[in-house]
Amino acid sequence: MPEPKPQRSYFDWNATAPLRTEARLAFEGALSIGGNPSSVHAEGRAARRLIENAREQVAALAGARPGDVFFTSSGTEANMLALTPAIEIANEKRPRSRLLLSAIEHASVRSGGRFAREAINEIPVEADGRLDLGALEEAVAKAPLPLVSLMQANNETGVVQPVAEAAAIVHAGGGVLHVDAVQAAGRIACDIAALGADLLTLSAHKIGGPKGVGALVRGSEDLHIPDPLIRGGGQERGLRAGTENVAGIVAFGMAAAAVRQKRDAEAGHMLALRNALETGLATISPGAVIFGVGAERLPNTTLFAVQGMNAETAVIAFDLEGVAVSSGAACSSGRVQPSHVLAAMGVSPALTRGAVRVSLGWETTSADVEMFLGAWRKLATALSKENRGIAA
Amino acid sequence: MPEPKPQRSYFDWNATAPLRTEARLAFEGALSIGGNPSSVHAEGRAARRLIENAREQVAALAGARPGDVFFTSSGTEANMLALTPAIEIANEKRPRSRLLLSAIEHASVRSGGRFAREAINEIPVEADGRLDLGALEEAVAKAPLPLVSLMQANNETGVVQPVAEAAAIVHAGGGVLHVDAVQAAGRIACDIAALGADLLTLSAHKIGGPKGVGALVRGSEDLHIPDPLIRGGGQERGLRAGTENVAGIVAFGMAAAAVRQKRDAEAGHMLALRNALETGLATISPGAVIFGVGAERLPNTTLFAVQGMNAETAVIAFDLEGVAVSSGAACSSGRVQPSHVLAAMGVSPALTRGAVRVSLGWETTSADVEMFLGAWRKLATALSKENRGIAA
Repeated sequence: MPEPKPQRSYFDWNATAPLRTEARLAFEGALSIGGNPSSVHAEGRAARRLIENAREQVAALAGARPGDVFFTSSGTEANMLALTPAIEIANEKRPRSRLLLSAIEHASVRSGGRFAREAINEIPVEADGRLDLGALEEAVAKAPLPLVSLMQANNETGVVQPVAEAAAIVHAGGGVLHVDAVQAAGRIACDIAALGADLLTLSAHKIGGPKGVGALVRGSEDLHIPDPLIRGGGQERGLRAGTENVAGIVAFGMAAAAVRQKRDAEAGHMLALRNALETGLATISPGAVIFGVGAERLPNTTLFAVQGMNAETAVIAFDLEGVAVSSGAACSSGRVQPSHVLAAMGVSPALTRGAVRVSLGWETTSADVEMFLGAWRKLATALSKENRGIAA
Repeated sequence: MPEPKPQRSYFDWNATAPLRTEARLAFEGALSIGGNPSSVHAEGRAARRLIENAREQVAALAGARPGDVFFTSSGTEANMLALTPAIEIANEKRPRSRLLLSAIEHASVRSGGRFAREAINEIPVEADGRLDLGALEEAVAKAPLPLVSLMQANNETGVVQPVAEAAAIVHAGGGVLHVDAVQAAGRIACDIAALGADLLTLSAHKIGGPKGVGALVRGSEDLHIPDPLIRGGGQERGLRAGTENVAGIVAFGMAAAAVRQKRDAEAGHMLALRNALETGLATISPGAVIFGVGAERLPNTTLFAVQGMNAETAVIAFDLEGVAVSSGAACSSGRVQPSHVLAAMGVSPALTRGAVRVSLGWETTSADVEMFLGAWRKLATALSKENRGIAA
């Protein structure tokens, strides 16, 4: 029996994912816990236990010790917290004078955290969207003891970065490596030791947890951030003040536990559907370009364009057909800017303007893929007529 | 018919309050909204509408325009965001070189935000716990264009501060006034214009919203914070990056709306019970000192001590009797320090060590008060025997 046609098909999982059932149940249960985790009475201790349990679940996802997980309000906040010149390893107390970023980082990393703009250098990527390791090696050699930030997988193209190779280069140069794993987590393994990362950023809402919770994970207790971003009370062992988002943290923990258990199956499911989607796309539009196709990509992400398409118009047209897709990252509300990721990959501005991101999730079905392809068939036909019109 | 005896009586509402039913229902409803508010598709727009609706509700609580409300992850974060030397009024671009704080501020304000420690001066309070307005006037005269931070009501004593009078002094001296209204909101009016505040901090979880959400409200669109604490995407009109905590913000909005409607009734309810509690306390322990009793206080807060009592021991003893109280603020997890608030009021260290905070809320019942008084009767008797034993 064919699957029923969905009313709406959501293909913007890289912007945000729906809450997993496990996380929702944990969330709703934790909303009844009335205490402040800093309070010593029974109500406070109950809230504290929930947070520490969630810390173990998130630590397990990253292959870290619970004591090395620090909860924040978002991946963005975790990135801001991580990127500080004051970062110390084994109490060395030598400031990191330079921040090296890949040219394709998320806006929250591109902002440079607590580094001055002039202290930041960008490391280019190859045409396939992967970091240029030779360029990294040169930059590390020129910048003693740098802090380097490299995302595990790109949010627009899904291209998986050579993190372990980069880590070897960074560490050989006495540097510290921060990895933004926000898009990778739940789709590929993000074991902090295997990656060779010193710091790792996670966000709850991309793996089926709630919006408003993230974490910064460290690879070793030798690493110390002496300048918290948000100061006041002693929460998160002094690294992040403010009453904890108890229910949100509990739900993040449950999402992390679910992801650990289901990731391989879900990745296989998403990859099969994504491949079907790309095959259909190529059939309808043989001229469509899929970015980063030559590199290893996340199993759920397709960034594509056809000549002459305007992405903003396409997103609206898809939306009217009941299909939610995006034109690049969703995080820069109201700002329509050409993708810095595609620019870094050397894609022409004309093609970049037409780039549409399609990202799948664990609830995506083949009926969703059919719905996407149906909508695209209509759009591509209209676009082709329009282009012929312009050419005529 | 007498009320049934509660199993546990929660008297730590100043640490955190339970989620209101209205907020919980809104929260659970919003958890189904899957979109990212920055996305342009239907799912994103639905999430955006929820946030803007909540912004109107929170603005109404503070008597502000929706466009002057900026959501954060906590009151602590809002305080950190507000306290910056870069703050501008009408694009004047003159840095505020000094931060003046009352001596009784919350830890997140005492941290000084983005001001260097040497740029901060403390303004003393009177013995009744109210700001010394003469000292403020002198300090403002010495510090041209200061940023002044004064809480609306103290979290430990409940003493309401002379905010409008302070505002007149601060503005006469060309200063900017930030008011931390975290404890006052929902208990007394916190209209930003009536207070004369330029910036106001709110926290959701103290008024029946969820933990993990706060807001910074400004009194005029002329006021501008050019240096966001958390940078990246353009959320909150560029003042606070990171995907919004949609469900938390929605629940905050509903709690704010509930508080607007119910505050007078709830304040009357809490005051009657608080007065009964204090009367009972004085009957059992005629020597008990209630701090700030000579000043206007929040209707829900009692901070008291008796000679020879140790607050930490008392909190544990109360907890064993099923009563949750606290020894001062709950926010400095793991750090047992004598109260800076009582020290500022000139209370002796010996008495300060025994200070226990009892804070009530809208769900507190007379049975709870009876339970508190029953527990206190036992403790006071034991304490009195112990003290006689030591004296013998």
